[in-house]
Amino acid sequence: MESVVQVSGTVISRPPGQENPKMPTGEIEIKVKTAKLLNSCKKLPFEIKDFVKKTEALRLRYRYLDLRGVQMQYNLRLRSQMVMKMREYLCNLHGFVDIETPTLFKRTPGGAKEFVIPSREPGKFYSLPQSPQQFKQLLMVGGLDRYFQVARCYRDEGSRPDRQPEFTQIDIEMSFVEQTGIQSLIEGLLQYSWPSDKDPVVVPFPSMTFAEALASYGTDKPDTRFGMKIVDISDMFRNTKVGFLQDALSKPQGTIKAICIPEGEKYLKRKDIESIRKFAADHFNQEVLPIFLKTSNNWNSPVAKFIMEEQGLGLIRLLETQEEDVVLLTAGEHKKACSLLGKLRLECADLLEARGVVLRDPALFSFLWVVDFPLFFPKEENPEELEAAHHPFTAPHPSDIHLLYTEPQKVRSQHYDLVLNGSEIGGGSIRIHDAELQHYILATVLKEDVKLLSHLLQALDYGAPPHGGIAIGLDRLTCLVTGAPSIRDVIAFPKSFQGHDLMSNAPDSIPPEELKPYHIQVSWPTDSETEKSSLNHPCHPES
Amino acid sequence: MESVVQVSGTVISRPPGQENPKMPTGEIEIKVKTAKLLNSCKKLPFEIKDFVKKTEALRLRYRYLDLRGVQMQYNLRLRSQMVMKMREYLCNLHGFVDIETPTLFKRTPGGAKEFVIPSREPGKFYSLPQSPQQFKQLLMVGGLDRYFQVARCYRDEGSRPDRQPEFTQIDIEMSFVEQTGIQSLIEGLLQYSWPSDKDPVVVPFPSMTFAEALASYGTDKPDTRFGMKIVDISDMFRNTKVGFLQDALSKPQGTIKAICIPEGEKYLKRKDIESIRKFAADHFNQEVLPIFLKTSNNWNSPVAKFIMEEQGLGLIRLLETQEEDVVLLTAGEHKKACSLLGKLRLECADLLEARGVVLRDPALFSFLWVVDFPLFFPKEENPEELEAAHHPFTAPHPSDIHLLYTEPQKVRSQHYDLVLNGSEIGGGSIRIHDAELQHYILATVLKEDVKLLSHLLQALDYGAPPHGGIAIGLDRLTCLVTGAPSIRDVIAFPKSFQGHDLMSNAPDSIPPEELKPYHIQVSWPTDSETEKSSLNHPCHPES
Repeated sequence: MESVVQVSGTVISRPPGQENPKMPTGEIEIKVKTAKLLNSCKKLPFEIKDFVKKTEALRLRYRYLDLRGVQMQYNLRLRSQMVMKMREYLCNLHGFVDIETPTLFKRTPGGAKEFVIPSREPGKFYSLPQSPQQFKQLLMVGGLDRYFQVARCYRDEGSRPDRQPEFTQIDIEMSFVEQTGIQSLIEGLLQYSWPSDKDPVVVPFPSMTFAEALASYGTDKPDTRFGMKIVDISDMFRNTKVGFLQDALSKPQGTIKAICIPEGEKYLKRKDIESIRKFAADHFNQEVLPIFLKTSNNWNSPVAKFIMEEQGLGLIRLLETQEEDVVLLTAGEHKKACSLLGKLRLECADLLEARGVVLRDPALFSFLWVVDFPLFFPKEENPEELEAAHHPFTAPHPSDIHLLYTEPQKVRSQHYDLVLNGSEIGGGSIRIHDAELQHYILATVLKEDVKLLSHLLQALDYGAPPHGGIAIGLDRLTCLVTGAPSIRDVIAFPKSFQGHDLMSNAPDSIPPEELKPYHIQVSWPTDSETEKSSLNHPCHPES
Repeated sequence: MESVVQVSGTVISRPPGQENPKMPTGEIEIKVKTAKLLNSCKKLPFEIKDFVKKTEALRLRYRYLDLRGVQMQYNLRLRSQMVMKMREYLCNLHGFVDIETPTLFKRTPGGAKEFVIPSREPGKFYSLPQSPQQFKQLLMVGGLDRYFQVARCYRDEGSRPDRQPEFTQIDIEMSFVEQTGIQSLIEGLLQYSWPSDKDPVVVPFPSMTFAEALASYGTDKPDTRFGMKIVDISDMFRNTKVGFLQDALSKPQGTIKAICIPEGEKYLKRKDIESIRKFAADHFNQEVLPIFLKTSNNWNSPVAKFIMEEQGLGLIRLLETQEEDVVLLTAGEHKKACSLLGKLRLECADLLEARGVVLRDPALFSFLWVVDFPLFFPKEENPEELEAAHHPFTAPHPSDIHLLYTEPQKVRSQHYDLVLNGSEIGGGSIRIHDAELQHYILATVLKEDVKLLSHLLQALDYGAPPHGGIAIGLDRLTCLVTGAPSIRDVIAFPKSFQGHDLMSNAPDSIPPEELKPYHIQVSWPTDSETEKSSLNHPCHPES
């Protein structure tokens, strides 16, 4: 099994009835004259069959054997083919120039998630960039007006599931372009590179504003493969007698929202509803009320008796409910209520599918542009201060520029996200090309250290063209296309949750003399620190 | 100048006589209706014309302006096109799979030139690999039998001219292949991707053994665009009376060698000859004798009177000298004498060309395979010990395997280098696929720490196929193709000699609190150390 042999002989047809049309070589066999063992295989740690269950730790430790599996071969070969088609589209059909940008760079403002690399100059470090953002803008200033790169990017987020410390994005930037130009380029790119064994991509993709996505789906990356949209039913309850609804409506941004789960009564068990309500209480500090719609006049709900007939009929009309549906209702501040119901919507979809309902067709790829994001968000730790919603180079929406100097928190941006089946697979924006505006946003609005970006600010002053771009997350995209359970299944040698290479045992210790040229030494944690950190990040739990 | 304007109007023909056929838009002009300044350009640090001289430091500091130059635009666009053609050839025509391998890896044995990246685990470091060598071999074990990648590689060599801390190679590996298979693949690759504005590449490329390259050109990367080959004239002088020639021949490996510089008497000045002799004395501790061949009987040389007529005639015959040629003669140990004359050969070629002789046609691309390298070299610091001539995974030459256990220093390898115009642009080998042989070479011959490579040794034991590959240095190749004076001219954002990004000022200082998560601190050198190191690596001499 799995040894390598060299065979010579005569190609003959398989005996009638023994052909295998599923194999490329299924019609022939070889009548062997000589056979030679080129390399033998010792006892395998697991059988190389996709249906044989093995832990991910074992797969990663023997990745070179795991790669022999049919699914991993398919995933990596499909990825290669898709990228090749993308290159043809960009390079051969649209005149883009493939340009490599450095990965030994310097830290960017707020770059706390950037790996550092000590240099041979004492105290001086390179940083591994999170994206080629600055370089691609500088290329536009440099007159390379259509840039792309399949770019390796780095982000040190510690241990997080389904994130990799190094990842790859299709990185694109164009001069003299507007939002719609980038969007149609990307639609064409995906259509052109889409695997031929999948249903073709339909363009143009639908578009939705950030505000609409939040209101209807409770998230900026809506899964539009199924309904169950969030509906605002505040108006139905202006005169309600139910205390917590009254309360909610009386507060600023107070709303009442609901989603309708089709045939919920059939599929959701009592304990499901209970766990839904508990989730809402624990994570959102919100009350959720289930309403079982037996018939229009027969409400089975804790609030049934307070719902007047016209409210009931309104509810049915707004939510388009049918018999046996279940309505989940919550009340509270707009954003919070939407976020909660957005989460519950996905939770319920999982529950329904676990019980056999086909809600999300696995052959369906539902693309969506989300646009008109806010330019800034209040900082979580200090809501008085603003931070860039995406990055500080994003251009404000032309209609909102006047607000920048008065109510910056209200300014929308020219940022756009590309969402596929509820996952963000890309994002980009039209950039600021005006040095003065860029300086104002960095220094006055965001209060960043402008010195770290002086080269970029200076570059904008030398006749920078208007420009914009986008980056598509290649790992995530390939993962969705292949239907792989994790991005680790579309990467040849991924790191584990803890950022380890379980095969080669990276990261590894380094002798102090090899650190000397870099003028660094290890600060070994004290015993108490070690204990604390090993509680948070247990060592090697995967192996 | 260099501002960005938006103009609308009517396209009209240029007035007769004002057409410019060299411009794509040279036949038309626009009759302007409206014009709008999109972005103005402030005073430029240098005029953006290729003929305007500027220091490289200034160019690198304002790289985004330098990139607007005609030559940089040509270089980067040509590079992109060549890489795209290479991808088409490998991926679409030859079934290769483009696979990304990690750059956050662990140190390799003897990896003193690898950058280190602290992780969040105290004392554990990733290393940036010098090449994907291990991964590409593991991919062969994993059944991805035709791999390629345009791979970013890292090497920390401190300050060295024309080296970059990060560079790119076309990285290729195949299963079930022999040396000739890789060679013809690469010949086809270069032929296919060669720019259409250059003379087509002629295949197959000539091949030369390492021993022959050393004997005839004094180097393992011969520039075969011109002659002036090294000739062994030992036999002519077996009975010589010249003391230092007698001495040389009486020693083991003792030889007398010469090169002939065509029309040297016309182009080389007395002080050239003097500086050549001084170079030989200073760098090789060798004597070099010039012989001016007036006519066959009239030698103008310090040794003229000792050269007998038959020796003179033999010299003329062996070196194919003509009147006015100059012969440079040296005596000593074979390798040393060849190396010296190899250097002088290139030196003299430069001198002749500086004086107007066309020795190396700039339109000529002279490819050459150099093969049959030794598998091991004696270590410089301790010649009793051996080190891998290339890397420890290189397979021994099949005819020499028996010597491995008795006289390993005599074993030739299955390594091959690709040389273009005297520069090494690629190298590869058939690899060891036998775990036992690999272990023997690592542990017994090379005395390496086998633990660091246990995953690779183990992988070979699971039915690894025979395999081999190559890597082509993309920066160097593009540099030669475009005729750029430095690899920095084919890289969008290169580092300076000292490894600095002069535009953004990388590497840069990092606040101690950002080093804390990585459990490292800076070891600031003491004053005396600083002084010493600043003598060796002067700070920022470029800026």
